[in-house]
Amino acid sequence: MNELKNLTYGFVGLGLMGGSLAKAIREYVLAVTDTHGKIYACDADMAPLELALKEKIIDKGFERGDADDMLLQCDFVYICLYPHATLKFLQEHRNSFKRGAVVTDISGVKTFIMENIDTVLADNIDFIPGHPMAGSEREGYIHSSGTIFNGRNYILMPRESNTSEHLEMMKNLVTAIGFSRIIETDYKTHDHKIAFTSQLCHVIASALVDSAEDDRITAFGGGSYEDLTRIAMINAPLWAELFLANKKELLEHICAFEEKLDRIKSEISADDNVGLRETLERVRTKRINMACIDTVIKD
Amino acid sequence: MNELKNLTYGFVGLGLMGGSLAKAIREYVLAVTDTHGKIYACDADMAPLELALKEKIIDKGFERGDADDMLLQCDFVYICLYPHATLKFLQEHRNSFKRGAVVTDISGVKTFIMENIDTVLADNIDFIPGHPMAGSEREGYIHSSGTIFNGRNYILMPRESNTSEHLEMMKNLVTAIGFSRIIETDYKTHDHKIAFTSQLCHVIASALVDSAEDDRITAFGGGSYEDLTRIAMINAPLWAELFLANKKELLEHICAFEEKLDRIKSEISADDNVGLRETLERVRTKRINMACIDTVIKD
Repeated sequence: MNELKNLTYGFVGLGLMGGSLAKAIREYVLAVTDTHGKIYACDADMAPLELALKEKIIDKGFERGDADDMLLQCDFVYICLYPHATLKFLQEHRNSFKRGAVVTDISGVKTFIMENIDTVLADNIDFIPGHPMAGSEREGYIHSSGTIFNGRNYILMPRESNTSEHLEMMKNLVTAIGFSRIIETDYKTHDHKIAFTSQLCHVIASALVDSAEDDRITAFGGGSYEDLTRIAMINAPLWAELFLANKKELLEHICAFEEKLDRIKSEISADDNVGLRETLERVRTKRINMACIDTVIKD
Repeated sequence: MNELKNLTYGFVGLGLMGGSLAKAIREYVLAVTDTHGKIYACDADMAPLELALKEKIIDKGFERGDADDMLLQCDFVYICLYPHATLKFLQEHRNSFKRGAVVTDISGVKTFIMENIDTVLADNIDFIPGHPMAGSEREGYIHSSGTIFNGRNYILMPRESNTSEHLEMMKNLVTAIGFSRIIETDYKTHDHKIAFTSQLCHVIASALVDSAEDDRITAFGGGSYEDLTRIAMINAPLWAELFLANKKELLEHICAFEEKLDRIKSEISADDNVGLRETLERVRTKRINMACIDTVIKD
């Protein structure tokens, strides 16, 4: 197996996530002196490429029209585009990848990609669907950081055709750049769970900001409102796409949440102190257990 | 005016908040060598008193039955009890305060206290209703910290009878212990705003934990779910009391939030990409404005 430090990495899209992943690979994988590895990137916008080149994060930048020139040289390709653009890129460049290349993506919704993947992939590359569970309310390469992955979860949805050697390489890479836990699952489970932990949270945060009487409300904040709404500083085009691409799962979770909210509302409405305390105690225990599980796994 | 460093402070209740306030006063106000100030505390539980004495946070601890002995000696009394207990304490000890003492509280709901305050207060003390907007998901003196107030908001609801000297003293004190912004308002506005920024957030966080399929869901978390639900590790008896004491305002905010949530749900349901993007863009701008306002005020 090629060592991680000897690979040529190619980033398709050098925004917040692509930039952060490239920075992390530069810092944790290719920082050593005896490395032969390279980092290339292509983007529709020249500005991040020029900045990344200046910062010595990438060795070479490619305009979007020259993507094929880059792909031909890359052992490991990280497609860091929006979900639909990811599928489209794979389709349009299916014959341009280096034979035997490992290709992965970061799309937050997987079902519609995986249901079409066999028709868009050439058979001489190994595509490993993935989802790094990290991000920022800020956008673009300018706000990228190689340290946002420390202690985070990485979800992999291996395909039957993935070789064990490539899967091992992928796991070694994400561990090297800071992720502390790798979850292996199938794409349907991923979309179901992510609709809850990620998309539902963004919907709730957005509704909570939308329902504020004015934008001076944080003068009365003690941290809770700020914490619950930070992710409402949302990348609208990306999240609209994610919500709609995972519509069925997301709507189910919204309804389940509304039911639980209604239950608490009813207890308040009925002055049901005993019921309310029981609900809050149960919720407290459940949330503490979540934190304990995380600690155990991370330890 | 007595200088802050020469006052005798009395804490009624030495839990998370009382303990944190006492620690902050010890660190930032009475830490200097030429101080003549003292910190006393009474609590129904001897354990926090003994620990605080050992840690040199308080100079003397009083059993709950000896509260009157403490009150007689205190220039500044911090009542750090649950809302109903605050009113009850004021009532039961109305004749025990030192003449001219400044008395303040930390209750997160004020209307029911203020509507009864004139019948429970002796006329020789100056009661300034307050609400320090800080806390923790952990409980008790053992988890208290003198640094949780840094950069936080403090809400004061001055009464007509408050002297300007005492109000000034109160503001100097909360500024000295780390709060960066003092909001002056009336108790009805407080209860309306706090129902939104604090109580609604706790209700939402609780419903969001309650609707999780299991307590292993954070394996699929990327930080959002964890941030939105941290406050669901809730002190159930306290928050049940807060929710019910501010029932009308809280229910109105829950309904307003549900309407906004329903709107987003409808846009998703209708595959309304344009409407969804517009909503998310509007929300994003509103939330960014909140952050900007905070920065300006804090600067």
